[in-house]
Amino acid sequence: MKGLFVTFEGGEGAGKSSILKEISQELRDDGYPVLETREPGGIDIAEKIRDVILNPSHTSMDARTEALLYAAARRQHLVEKVIPALEEGKIVLCDRFLDSSLVYQGYARGLGIDAVHRINEFAIEDFMPELTLLFDITPEEGLMRIAANKEREQNRLDLEKVDFHEKVHEAYQKLAVDFPDRIKVINASQSFQEVKTDAIQVLRKYLPSIQK
Amino acid sequence: MKGLFVTFEGGEGAGKSSILKEISQELRDDGYPVLETREPGGIDIAEKIRDVILNPSHTSMDARTEALLYAAARRQHLVEKVIPALEEGKIVLCDRFLDSSLVYQGYARGLGIDAVHRINEFAIEDFMPELTLLFDITPEEGLMRIAANKEREQNRLDLEKVDFHEKVHEAYQKLAVDFPDRIKVINASQSFQEVKTDAIQVLRKYLPSIQK
Repeated sequence: MKGLFVTFEGGEGAGKSSILKEISQELRDDGYPVLETREPGGIDIAEKIRDVILNPSHTSMDARTEALLYAAARRQHLVEKVIPALEEGKIVLCDRFLDSSLVYQGYARGLGIDAVHRINEFAIEDFMPELTLLFDITPEEGLMRIAANKEREQNRLDLEKVDFHEKVHEAYQKLAVDFPDRIKVINASQSFQEVKTDAIQVLRKYLPSIQK
Repeated sequence: MKGLFVTFEGGEGAGKSSILKEISQELRDDGYPVLETREPGGIDIAEKIRDVILNPSHTSMDARTEALLYAAARRQHLVEKVIPALEEGKIVLCDRFLDSSLVYQGYARGLGIDAVHRINEFAIEDFMPELTLLFDITPEEGLMRIAANKEREQNRLDLEKVDFHEKVHEAYQKLAVDFPDRIKVINASQSFQEVKTDAIQVLRKYLPSIQK
């Protein structure tokens, strides 16, 4: 694989999606080939799977069914979009990936991090990100930011109780301790500009191998 | 669980679906409460997942995506239909279950029996069938029967090469050796009446605990 696979992770209100866009622009300005993506990423099969997950009439969906569907959509997005871009030598910036499932479904929803990891191992095989930027912010601060941001539409996760977001925060911190080589923690309670500067500084260490 | 969970397995042309119907009728005639089913079993979410799997425009579907989708549909069918029936004390007769995935996707399609087992363990947890009737027939005989049966519509699996069906046969035999307590082999190359008699004889050993 000639490219570089980078994932962006963090709780609600950490600003990761906005930072991703800015970093993407900066790398493009520097002449790097970049793919910005997030699951299901416009991949037909993965979008259809997402429709099943998000269909509001599916109130009876079991948590394990949902976790398997997310893993299925992840597989297809990876195979059809991420891997081809990496083969072309692109820097792939992906908004949420494996860790989100471990944290949200494995830990916060209580299915078990190891169990959710096993089905995702099946889905992604060896295609782990070389770098995961974890945007770390306390749940209180993250939720305050969301409340203050009137342009942002509230999503299903924003509406969970504080206790849920505490669990998410806890689980991300645990993953960062367990996988220090892959996961780099960015202090996301700083100003937007500072967070962006820190993130791009970490990312730049991975760029020397990438061809413009 | 008060009920009894029985799965019917075997290669193409072994007659398991017809035998299932006859056994179901015989048990009902004897006064037992019976649920006949097969995935996705009319469960809304599972049917929608099946639509994604079978959509002919999805030519690019990856084998692992497909295996995860089957596991997701299995989970939902189990939770919404099989477990409630077992809780009501019913005898659940299910046409294909876990072993079909192990054999077809794990072995014949080459994803690995252990790998496919892991994602299915996540899907079904501890809800294994108490009894699996394996209708054993050589691929040559099975395919000849299908060819002779003009009422049967050919499906996607019937059209696979003989080599594929040989692999299916091999894998079922391996599973029967590995799980002798659960999987009982029925010689399906006998006449329909003989196969049915053998199957119901095995099944009757499990009935004393079931309330009519």
